[in-house]
Amino acid sequence: MNEIKIFCPATIANLNCGFDVLGLCLEGIGDEMIIRKSAEKGIRITKITGADLPTETEKNVAGVAALAIIKNMEIDFGFEIEIHKKIKAGSGIGSSSASAAGAVFGINELLGKPFSKHKLVDLAMKGEAIASGCEHADNVAPCLLGGFTLVRGYNPLDVIRIESPNELYAVVLHPHIEIKTADARAVLQPMIPLKDAITQTGNLGGLIAGLYTSDYDLIGRSLKDVIIEPLRKHLIPNFDEVKNSAILNGALGSGISGAGPSIFALCKGQDKAEKVAYAMSESYQNTGIAFDMHISRINQNGVDIITN
Amino acid sequence: MNEIKIFCPATIANLNCGFDVLGLCLEGIGDEMIIRKSAEKGIRITKITGADLPTETEKNVAGVAALAIIKNMEIDFGFEIEIHKKIKAGSGIGSSSASAAGAVFGINELLGKPFSKHKLVDLAMKGEAIASGCEHADNVAPCLLGGFTLVRGYNPLDVIRIESPNELYAVVLHPHIEIKTADARAVLQPMIPLKDAITQTGNLGGLIAGLYTSDYDLIGRSLKDVIIEPLRKHLIPNFDEVKNSAILNGALGSGISGAGPSIFALCKGQDKAEKVAYAMSESYQNTGIAFDMHISRINQNGVDIITN
Repeated sequence: MNEIKIFCPATIANLNCGFDVLGLCLEGIGDEMIIRKSAEKGIRITKITGADLPTETEKNVAGVAALAIIKNMEIDFGFEIEIHKKIKAGSGIGSSSASAAGAVFGINELLGKPFSKHKLVDLAMKGEAIASGCEHADNVAPCLLGGFTLVRGYNPLDVIRIESPNELYAVVLHPHIEIKTADARAVLQPMIPLKDAITQTGNLGGLIAGLYTSDYDLIGRSLKDVIIEPLRKHLIPNFDEVKNSAILNGALGSGISGAGPSIFALCKGQDKAEKVAYAMSESYQNTGIAFDMHISRINQNGVDIITN
Repeated sequence: MNEIKIFCPATIANLNCGFDVLGLCLEGIGDEMIIRKSAEKGIRITKITGADLPTETEKNVAGVAALAIIKNMEIDFGFEIEIHKKIKAGSGIGSSSASAAGAVFGINELLGKPFSKHKLVDLAMKGEAIASGCEHADNVAPCLLGGFTLVRGYNPLDVIRIESPNELYAVVLHPHIEIKTADARAVLQPMIPLKDAITQTGNLGGLIAGLYTSDYDLIGRSLKDVIIEPLRKHLIPNFDEVKNSAILNGALGSGISGAGPSIFALCKGQDKAEKVAYAMSESYQNTGIAFDMHISRINQNGVDIITN
């Protein structure tokens, strides 16, 4: 195999109570990448469509992640990467992570899979760091592993894939405004009340338990964020209105996707998800801001090969 | 049934990463209580052995919890309570919770079980508040429900019983010194770094996932406390030595039980638990402080009727 075409899914990180530790993988929305072996050594970004991103390997998240995977490998060939972006940069659904994850996944396939998917998460973080300013795994982990993922810790990286119930759907409203991850980080407070940390811990525990036991009510009761959402929601026009419309129409929970501006909701069943998506759209019409809506099951596979 | 004899087990709260939310129930170590119907209305504490505790109903945790369960009930009889304490007050393994939980469990049985076990947790908290100064459920919940419990939140009280693997054992070293819960609370800081809260959240999530999937290694990696233990461990002589000896001898993790002074370790299998208990004992000999050791499986039943 000398060439591979892959689907690199969008992801939702944080999920209310799981700031910097939880994420999930989406179906249907994602980038496509083509990666091929080349006689020339090293990594080259040969084509980018759908976004205005740097083609210099060292400045491109896919390029940096690709360099990380071939580092220290004795190979007498290189790789070319085509990136066809469908996920907009700064959308809050893991655009840069999709590129980083896709690069390491594709190269690993072409090399005969020397690395485990968990190791690929570690390598993809190197690319992610170019976009966010720090190495984190809360989007690359679900993008590569699929499902829900928990980043337990970083020294060393410890990522756990969490089971989730079949009928769980995610709805995403993506307003066409950009919030840079660095700006979203700037509003955070370095110190937080211990009592809020306890509340968040209880909810995170409840969410994990709800996912393992398919307890949708418990999932819903646990999808709360007392630490980050109050500080960040002002960056997103009409956030409260959209969230309230999701909850009032039967969503289990709703919150900021990643660092925003996308707003997500989780729902039980496709019918409910469609109803919630409609209500969220309605509540955003009067902002005058263009937006996309996505409805998706939880993607259990993560990055995957596209076979024609 | 006019009289009931019950076993009220000791419990371990907090469990490193689960401050104020997690707890587990022990076998073998616990109080005994006898509760009987009386013609006289109200609640009377008729006998206490093994501890110097107030017999006035309103000042006794069992009494206050008992008053909470019969409040608003139209009954033309009352209850007498005998308490035979085996768990020392201020030991950090849920002494007051055992009394509160036993009182509501026993009265509920004699009344024909009008309340669910989850409702009993709520009622037992009223008694617990006498001892700790605030209503909390991290010991009464595992004492009543058995197994591991998560207190997701309090408004309203939401307690989740968490599955745990069969071969999990708890070891407890109880030094005969007293740390009052109020004193242990005084060393806490009201504000904590956000980064520590994230670390704790990741570990709590990992522990819950490890319990559901019987992943002992993951349980071990998650049994860490970066928030409370550093502040409280100085209240317990030789804490670091005991903890290190547990870990070096194969414990999955070790930490402060509740508010201390008891030190717990979790282990896979009875042989390992016995080895760890021996090592912990050895490391405490030179303190000159008397102590007890307990080795226990996870008690899956919680408070239970003793049948002769």
